[in-house]
Amino acid sequence: MIDQTEELPSPGVTAPRGFLAAGVTAGLKPSGRPDLALVVNEGPLDVGTAVFTTNRVVGAPVLWSRQVVQDHVVRAVVLNSGGANVFAGPEGFQDSHATAERVGHALGVSAGDVVVASTGIIGERLPRQLLLDGVDLASAALSDDGGPAAAVAIMTTDTVPKTSHVTIDGDFGTWTVGGMAKGAGMLAPALATMLCVLTTDAVIDAETAERALRTATRQTFDRIDSDGCMSTSDTVVLLVSGASGATPDPEGFTAGLTAVCGDLARQLIADAEGATHDIAVTVMGAETEDAALAVARAVTRSNLFKAAVYGNDPNWGRVLAQVGTVPESVAAFDPATLDVSINGVLVCKDGAAHTPRSEVDLASERLVQVLVDLKAGGEVVTVWTNDLTHAYVTENSEYST
Amino acid sequence: MIDQTEELPSPGVTAPRGFLAAGVTAGLKPSGRPDLALVVNEGPLDVGTAVFTTNRVVGAPVLWSRQVVQDHVVRAVVLNSGGANVFAGPEGFQDSHATAERVGHALGVSAGDVVVASTGIIGERLPRQLLLDGVDLASAALSDDGGPAAAVAIMTTDTVPKTSHVTIDGDFGTWTVGGMAKGAGMLAPALATMLCVLTTDAVIDAETAERALRTATRQTFDRIDSDGCMSTSDTVVLLVSGASGATPDPEGFTAGLTAVCGDLARQLIADAEGATHDIAVTVMGAETEDAALAVARAVTRSNLFKAAVYGNDPNWGRVLAQVGTVPESVAAFDPATLDVSINGVLVCKDGAAHTPRSEVDLASERLVQVLVDLKAGGEVVTVWTNDLTHAYVTENSEYST
Repeated sequence: MIDQTEELPSPGVTAPRGFLAAGVTAGLKPSGRPDLALVVNEGPLDVGTAVFTTNRVVGAPVLWSRQVVQDHVVRAVVLNSGGANVFAGPEGFQDSHATAERVGHALGVSAGDVVVASTGIIGERLPRQLLLDGVDLASAALSDDGGPAAAVAIMTTDTVPKTSHVTIDGDFGTWTVGGMAKGAGMLAPALATMLCVLTTDAVIDAETAERALRTATRQTFDRIDSDGCMSTSDTVVLLVSGASGATPDPEGFTAGLTAVCGDLARQLIADAEGATHDIAVTVMGAETEDAALAVARAVTRSNLFKAAVYGNDPNWGRVLAQVGTVPESVAAFDPATLDVSINGVLVCKDGAAHTPRSEVDLASERLVQVLVDLKAGGEVVTVWTNDLTHAYVTENSEYST
Repeated sequence: MIDQTEELPSPGVTAPRGFLAAGVTAGLKPSGRPDLALVVNEGPLDVGTAVFTTNRVVGAPVLWSRQVVQDHVVRAVVLNSGGANVFAGPEGFQDSHATAERVGHALGVSAGDVVVASTGIIGERLPRQLLLDGVDLASAALSDDGGPAAAVAIMTTDTVPKTSHVTIDGDFGTWTVGGMAKGAGMLAPALATMLCVLTTDAVIDAETAERALRTATRQTFDRIDSDGCMSTSDTVVLLVSGASGATPDPEGFTAGLTAVCGDLARQLIADAEGATHDIAVTVMGAETEDAALAVARAVTRSNLFKAAVYGNDPNWGRVLAQVGTVPESVAAFDPATLDVSINGVLVCKDGAAHTPRSEVDLASERLVQVLVDLKAGGEVVTVWTNDLTHAYVTENSEYST
């Protein structure tokens, strides 16, 4: 039985037992809004694992945190908004290190077990003293219902905090996965580092946790793609307390973790500022999952198609033109047999016009569902994106970063 | 000595000897503007070669014309705007075939030696009778100064016709390359098939012509990239009349051809409707040409960076974030030693902020020059694009295709 509370806010990272969290105002943001979050694993387990951006150019916090998670022991995660600490030189790395040291000192744990994540303006130093004072403030404010406050403190251009959890009452006992997220290659992506902290009180070993996290992120966060741009700081961390005493099987745990990641991913897409449509591109009939993914990504990265959707134009020609850019070595299909449906209307059958596009109504709903049938196999993948709007151009041309 | 006339219009395809051209109104465009062009090679040679879009989903004219050029004999090219003949089913192919037949009949040549190219709305049949009557009209209007009229008749959202030529007076005699182009993945790319016809009176064999055309397009048209979208109909044809009697060496001919293609490519970028900046991304210090090209393309495809340029923000962080997306297997570089200059100002040195970005002035010039130094070798490549503007979104969301 899955109990996924529909009421907001979900407690997020403090939904599972064994976790404390806080969100405070360190003064990093000119707006004076909360900007520093701390999540602490109280155990009994201290398993931690993470996935980071695959960008070769990364921020100092990623360089630091990659080292922290190597031994799969993580006691705390400290996150700040108001500054990404990217391209800030060797001093930037020292700022991340000092932050971890201060958390370690406040909690009585090793700095080497503290993950650091930062989001905000790039190319500038963070004010170190404000950061360290903020850590002290957050340490003093830690509580077992601090999840929502932590979720607020990591927001940048997000309009709402994103939290989620699932509680599973299964054969192995009752256990919970919680999480919070911000950002995500969204509509103001200079600030759009995606940060996500996941927590669980299930009893899970490091290897299972790592495998589950990779599977969950691959099927959720990796399949939202607002503008094809990859941040230098994306970080997803999973902390395992084991406080429930319940030991789910790996498949069950992966499913629960994927549910929370999927919910957070949908919240990220829905909060894309300025977007008027969420677009779900589903590719079916693919020979392999990779083939389906490559074709779906090609479509979600089309400025032309995304601008057409903004204009409520179900432009399947622009869909097919993108499908055609995927090399034969990546995805098998015969251009002459491709089908495209938009919101359930088969606008293109066997590579040629079918039902008139005028029968597709895009204006009355936010969701646009595009279905491409490659007719080459049985694999199906969905990738999410948003439409390309005037607001996107405004935010990304006027926002000073 | 190169005599590249600066006055407009260049005669374009009728600049070299041995060619006739015409541009007429067949009635395919609701606007009543010219929409059908014919270019005829009068010989003595009838060598022809072409490169087409690499998209796997292609229009009927490309399917037809690929067959035509296989034997390297091309006597004429017929081009229409007002309809792309893409996704128009088997009847669409018959329309292209019938057009070639009519040209063959009018000129007394084989239909199998007539290249067909179409541009305009996709997913709709062309009105065949109008098309065939237009061919008759064009055949009757052919003249040796018809190049400019032909260039006008292939325009879609282009605001000006694009023609160019170079005349080279060399050791092997005097010979000319001419050309015309339209479109090009530009700012209204639903109509942005790139069509280009090149003509020369040099004496060139088929093999040399093909090699020269591939080299020239790779260094010019393949390096302009407005929105990363690939048309289903892009076609570049080269016709060789040999009428000058001059036989340049292959390198010299390739250079002349590349000059005309480069000039046409620059005209295409400059005519990107709604763009406020042309952006030249130069990647130097690359280990290989492919590495430089991959990095330059990654930058030119960044919506974030292109929107920043629209806002006159020299956002080098967005440049580096794109550089970092190129896998190590494709381009060698150390993120910690990357340099970025914008309009000659070294804003990033060794992966960190250097000269303040406020010293870069983007507002007063259309051209933005981005220089990325990978410090990994000696190869240099430049790729051109435009900024991402409100006008792009407007055109591509409101234009009904």
